[in-house]
Amino acid sequence: MAEGVYRTRVYYRDVDQMGVVYYSRYLEYFEAARTELLRRIGVQVPDIEARGYYLPVVASHCEYPGSARFDDLLEITCRLDQFTGARMRIEYRINCENKLIVSGYTEHCFTNRNQRPVRPPHFFKEALTNAQ
Amino acid sequence: MAEGVYRTRVYYRDVDQMGVVYYSRYLEYFEAARTELLRRIGVQVPDIEARGYYLPVVASHCEYPGSARFDDLLEITCRLDQFTGARMRIEYRINCENKLIVSGYTEHCFTNRNQRPVRPPHFFKEALTNAQ
Amino acid sequence: MAEGVYRTRVYYRDVDQMGVVYYSRYLEYFEAARTELLRRIGVQVPDIEARGYYLPVVASHCEYPGSARFDDLLEITCRLDQFTGARMRIEYRINCENKLIVSGYTEHCFTNRNQRPVRPPHFFKEALTNAQ
Amino acid sequence: MAEGVYRTRVYYRDVDQMGVVYYSRYLEYFEAARTELLRRIGVQVPDIEARGYYLPVVASHCEYPGSARFDDLLEITCRLDQFTGARMRIEYRINCENKLIVSGYTEHCFTNRNQRPVRPPHFFKEALTNAQ
Repeated sequence: MAEGVYRTRVYYRDVDQMGVVYYSRYLEYFEAARTELLRRIGVQVPDIEARGYYLPVVASHCEYPGSARFDDLLEITCRLDQFTGARMRIEYRINCENKLIVSGYTEHCFTNRNQRPVRPPHFFKEALTNAQ
Repeated sequence: MAEGVYRTRVYYRDVDQMGVVYYSRYLEYFEAARTELLRRIGVQVPDIEARGYYLPVVASHCEYPGSARFDDLLEITCRLDQFTGARMRIEYRINCENKLIVSGYTEHCFTNRNQRPVRPPHFFKEALTNAQ
Repeated sequence: MAEGVYRTRVYYRDVDQMGVVYYSRYLEYFEAARTELLRRIGVQVPDIEARGYYLPVVASHCEYPGSARFDDLLEITCRLDQFTGARMRIEYRINCENKLIVSGYTEHCFTNRNQRPVRPPHFFKEALTNAQ
Repeated sequence: MAEGVYRTRVYYRDVDQMGVVYYSRYLEYFEAARTELLRRIGVQVPDIEARGYYLPVVASHCEYPGSARFDDLLEITCRLDQFTGARMRIEYRINCENKLIVSGYTEHCFTNRNQRPVRPPHFFKEALTNAQ
């Protein structure tokens, strides 16, 4: 298991006419958070791809108990659990001023360049084990 | 229950370096599909807002069994079931050349201008009943 | 010279908290308009890329005399002039209810897969000549 | 005149299938850079709006001599010059590893809530003068 916190500011580009972040943009924040979490445990996404692996999303889920507004500072806690077979689940909790506004998860599997599912590569499992 | 089909083309703006549509963009296609479904049953989203109601998303979910590529023509089937209390669920299936590539749902509730949940307005329930 | 009109609806995803389309999204509408213009003269962008050519943007410009709102139906007139050397300029005018709201242009050059500029391929110049 | 530097990482969400940042996303980076520049001179955009002013973009321009790739760390230098009448021009230069990849500008004018142009408010001109 690995966990990290990623912080980002909300800009105009992500806010809709209700004055809140548009619902799909949180998935973009999730991506930044998981990229930084992977970097922290020693795995850079471009390196994964340079080795011939991709990590596409096979499922995503969001609950929106609150909403973020323009100029808010968001704190995204991102948690990567062990694999269930070939699938990896990453969980996210977005807080703004200590209030939970969005939670969700993404599920991923490793594929090769031809988008065929493959087993998680050794270097990745090792990095995850070392992070624990 | 109401159902409709919305068609859209995939452009460069939505495709990532794996050559497939970025995972959050499908939620944008979902939005277009549900806006057009509501229009078809006689409810225009700007009218909902002009009457003082908003219809924010409280949950979203996607499964990605396939993926769309640049220039693909997508067919999004969108289905609105009855309410469960104040919550409304809309289901989506995205097909490309008769192959299912993404399925998912969004859940919505009505709120007033101050983002307080309110009961579904009469004109909306009536439109939905007439559509059946 | 080739000219075409592309129509698109404005959805929530592109509207900011001023209630108008966010300024960079017009460039995304421009891309859809030029892709459809090229298709109309017999050139599909995936075919260009399959032949080993890319058509990146080297400059973009927008003037915003008006603004589009949610649910507006936009009409984008797109005009492709002859090349000036290796550069090609495409001009855009976005109208909403017969009122000009945005005008602009993009400039492009052909490159190979390694992002090196190359001369416009013969099949492309021919399609452009035939369209006149 | 005021000047500031804003740094951002490139994530998957902004990269297209050529493997480079999609051309309109640089305008989104510009927005973040100018929001942070204004904050540094003591002007927060939500405060401008709370006082009844908006700062829409009336023109934008980009030149793309290079391109950014996934995971690149970008440095955006943003420079706000004095007003020419009601218009304000902000200039941007995006560097990646000390190489200029994009330059451009945006032009803005102040409006009231009804999108009517108004003169730059006193508090704004003062902040700009103090920053020099």
